[in-house]
Amino acid sequence: MNSTTPVTIAVDIMGSDGGMEATLGGCLRYLQNHASTRLILCGNEQKISAFPMAGELRSHFADRMELHHCEDVVTMTDKPMLMVRRGRNTSMWHAIELVKTGEAGAVVSCGNTGVLMAMSVLQLRMLEGIERPAITALWPSNRGRCVVLDVGANVEANANQLVQFAIMGEAFFRALEGKEKPSVGLLNVGAEELKGHELIRTAAKILREADPKMAFHGFVEGDDIAKGTVDVIVTDGFTGNITLKTAEGTARVIGAWIKEVMTQSLFTKLGAALMMGGLKKMRARMDPSNVNGAPLLGLNGLVIKSHGSADETGFCSALEIADSLVRHPFQEEIKATIAKVRERAVKVQTEEKEVS
Amino acid sequence: MNSTTPVTIAVDIMGSDGGMEATLGGCLRYLQNHASTRLILCGNEQKISAFPMAGELRSHFADRMELHHCEDVVTMTDKPMLMVRRGRNTSMWHAIELVKTGEAGAVVSCGNTGVLMAMSVLQLRMLEGIERPAITALWPSNRGRCVVLDVGANVEANANQLVQFAIMGEAFFRALEGKEKPSVGLLNVGAEELKGHELIRTAAKILREADPKMAFHGFVEGDDIAKGTVDVIVTDGFTGNITLKTAEGTARVIGAWIKEVMTQSLFTKLGAALMMGGLKKMRARMDPSNVNGAPLLGLNGLVIKSHGSADETGFCSALEIADSLVRHPFQEEIKATIAKVRERAVKVQTEEKEVS
Repeated sequence: MNSTTPVTIAVDIMGSDGGMEATLGGCLRYLQNHASTRLILCGNEQKISAFPMAGELRSHFADRMELHHCEDVVTMTDKPMLMVRRGRNTSMWHAIELVKTGEAGAVVSCGNTGVLMAMSVLQLRMLEGIERPAITALWPSNRGRCVVLDVGANVEANANQLVQFAIMGEAFFRALEGKEKPSVGLLNVGAEELKGHELIRTAAKILREADPKMAFHGFVEGDDIAKGTVDVIVTDGFTGNITLKTAEGTARVIGAWIKEVMTQSLFTKLGAALMMGGLKKMRARMDPSNVNGAPLLGLNGLVIKSHGSADETGFCSALEIADSLVRHPFQEEIKATIAKVRERAVKVQTEEKEVS
Repeated sequence: MNSTTPVTIAVDIMGSDGGMEATLGGCLRYLQNHASTRLILCGNEQKISAFPMAGELRSHFADRMELHHCEDVVTMTDKPMLMVRRGRNTSMWHAIELVKTGEAGAVVSCGNTGVLMAMSVLQLRMLEGIERPAITALWPSNRGRCVVLDVGANVEANANQLVQFAIMGEAFFRALEGKEKPSVGLLNVGAEELKGHELIRTAAKILREADPKMAFHGFVEGDDIAKGTVDVIVTDGFTGNITLKTAEGTARVIGAWIKEVMTQSLFTKLGAALMMGGLKKMRARMDPSNVNGAPLLGLNGLVIKSHGSADETGFCSALEIADSLVRHPFQEEIKATIAKVRERAVKVQTEEKEVS
């Protein structure tokens, strides 16, 4: 499937922190740049109509845009287990359903992550051979961008699940960046083989032996994420979530400090003005909205989580990630690799048990 | 014990990445600023004598400085379990021994962390009521500095151990910063009570109920570290180690990007020159050498790990942390709180089991 094949993406237009300006604006920008994609917008028609952008979408893209009215919306405080039963009139449920029925190739939502996860698992089910879904984050690094997973779908992961995350992350990076053999690392407290707890060492053993095609780098440490040592960083959802938020927090505080320095006096303001071009470029490099769009991997269908606070640019980035994925046979790649590795993984673990 | 009471600190002068310039220079600077402390330097006499700083130390501080000759040195590749048996002629072993015998109140070393930990546990033993030691990192935050532990002494921690880390971290922060009631947070994937895995929720329950004097804030997330939301951040050594290295890596990459921006052209260089004062201040704020010195808490004696790559300033900071701790009854505070909480912890866990 190439970039001119027509594809359809379902969009949950509700539930953004930035309101519908961000989501509708992102859709508008996306449609302007991608002539061969159709969008199905799910949301409350009355509310949507209040925005001038809705009129613009209707008048310019009537042939490539459809609006599905949904009465309800998932809020940030809604509980996943309750919403999978009572949330069937929400824009989120409906958008996911379009992927289930095959009307859309992917769904993008910036709503409540827990509910999105629960509704997606229930409607789409897991991909064969995958036990748990993983939230996958794109992260700016010194060498471009890298992928970290799981960043919070689960709080624990066993060795097999880490292996599955590695396979999914690798296929995702290939689909997104077109790199034939993305390098993969397991996040650990040291690079040496003996570091870390048993399950992470078992996962490394399986990855080293099970898929000779994968460019498995071994263990990586926390500072390797920003360095860009590998393309794909695999970890459990507890560590991944905390790590990513720590990095975001660090970048944000340093950003605030830089701003403080620049606005201290007339001299520093002049200094900042002279550096403006470079500072803007640096800001773009650090800006999470340029890497917005976190796929929930491991499902029988493509689900992309946009950050709740994403602006128009950020929401458009998430749509672009959906676009790349839907045109790429990466789900089939995952299934094939999983099947191949599974057999070997059982063997490695049996050997481990016999040894211990 | 106030700042004029004479105290003695044992210093392992070997094993620094920066060579003995860093450690000897740090000692020199420290003695210049602290009139009431004695240092016992442990290291190879011949090697030390080759440095002009050694002569300076001898001629100016003969009354407050002593040199203990040790034949061997622990290297970065030495294995802990081997060195506790075969490393008894090393400067590290000897420096720790001075704390054990009571000749010194604390030991500072920038050598191999694993070996330092193993030798310290073997010689000093654990503090009563503490199951595992914790490496404790000082971290620059938006509100000054905060403390994160464990950052790598152990790869796992159960609920009781997390509680013990909280008690030790709180006492450490109080000793260091003089704040009566440091706030304490448990690092988790969300701030809500139901987030995370069971053991972290049990730890929170114990902390909430067991010590009414502690300012326990509840769960904090990764971005709360840089924000400075709490004074003490408690986590297991796996998450803590990866988190800290991620933050360091992020800061380093952003630092490199800033440098790149500043040196791009004549204009940006001029701009940077105008901002120099502020940039220097920011650099000092971000600089790990200003917060160097990681105590290994939980032992029957004070052990401070200096970063292997610490320069003179950094090594002097580590000595200053040792100085603050040795003058503070914080080990007694830890013991008292542990005894009080222990009883309650057993009760909370019994209740948990009855409920489940």
